[in-house]
Amino acid sequence: RIKASGLKLQLCTNETQATRENFVRKLRAMGFDISVAQVTAPAPAACRLLRERGLRPHLLVHDDLVPEFAEIDKTNPNCVVLGDAAENFTYANLNEAFRLLIGMEKPVLISLGKGRYYKETDGLKLDVGAYMKALEYACDIQAEVVGKPAKRFFESALAELGVPPEQAIMIGDDIVSDVGGAQQCGMRALQVRTGKYR
Amino acid sequence: RIKASGLKLQLCTNETQATRENFVRKLRAMGFDISVAQVTAPAPAACRLLRERGLRPHLLVHDDLVPEFAEIDKTNPNCVVLGDAAENFTYANLNEAFRLLIGMEKPVLISLGKGRYYKETDGLKLDVGAYMKALEYACDIQAEVVGKPAKRFFESALAELGVPPEQAIMIGDDIVSDVGGAQQCGMRALQVRTGKYR
Repeated sequence: RIKASGLKLQLCTNETQATRENFVRKLRAMGFDISVAQVTAPAPAACRLLRERGLRPHLLVHDDLVPEFAEIDKTNPNCVVLGDAAENFTYANLNEAFRLLIGMEKPVLISLGKGRYYKETDGLKLDVGAYMKALEYACDIQAEVVGKPAKRFFESALAELGVPPEQAIMIGDDIVSDVGGAQQCGMRALQVRTGKYR
Repeated sequence: RIKASGLKLQLCTNETQATRENFVRKLRAMGFDISVAQVTAPAPAACRLLRERGLRPHLLVHDDLVPEFAEIDKTNPNCVVLGDAAENFTYANLNEAFRLLIGMEKPVLISLGKGRYYKETDGLKLDVGAYMKALEYACDIQAEVVGKPAKRFFESALAELGVPPEQAIMIGDDIVSDVGGAQQCGMRALQVRTGKYR
């Protein structure tokens, strides 16, 4: 329907459990005709930020996301990048990320989103935002969020589309990440009552 | 020295990795002549609160603390009690506690302290406060803290001593839990630069 209408589509995802390539492969298998260029995701946004500022990350992310950071120097880390690490959110890994941060003169925590929770087939799961808050509190710092609802994230999606914010509409199920973030950029937004909507 | 001086001593601990009995046993083995009655700890304070309000807890605490809750009805939980669960802070256990909370009409989270981190022989560790913040954020709620720096906690220690706050001094290494909490009760407080002090 969207393709036939001639409307442009850009997918803004906070998916950080897979590379864009794998994410698109999954969607195509479900019947969605979408390309990697149509996906705006936090990991590439984080890579741009790391390069701009000469940051070398310690990654606390999902194993499947690591390839997105292949080109980035990760020796002698001077920041922590936090994604939805899922099973990698172990007590040991959280303590390790914390120790690195608290040992920095000025701790830099980059978070690939700040979602509270999401729904999987086996139930609700804590999202990256909860773990971000844990590290923020322990280190008395504020994380920099590069996924939704960061303004810059929506702006780069609009740039991909070549469309001004007032001609775009954001559709999502998260009132903060999707709706709030888009509205902050001057876009209209629509909350769908599916997925994790309660 | 303190014993010889005739000064009264009450140990206010946020230790939630062991029962008071085991905690005292450890201290006595180190040469400290102290009794269980001289220890004010969060778990018994939580039990009092649970009884008063007819709450049945789901426990996310250290295995060694569980005996403190032996007398408490834990069937069909209507609140979550969070302690420094250490190795029990697994992804699965955190998701379970979260799901229970988010499924309650009015989620009740009772936290046995809100420390940021502490030091062990193998390095710094995230303390219960960090995990409390994670659950608070995910559920959009505020936890009730029953350990230090809660005012009521210091008041019950003073009651044990039978001493008014202005005649007591709190000595500790944590500026928030120890010093801040005591000052809020009208006690003087002294921060020692040992332990986790940085």
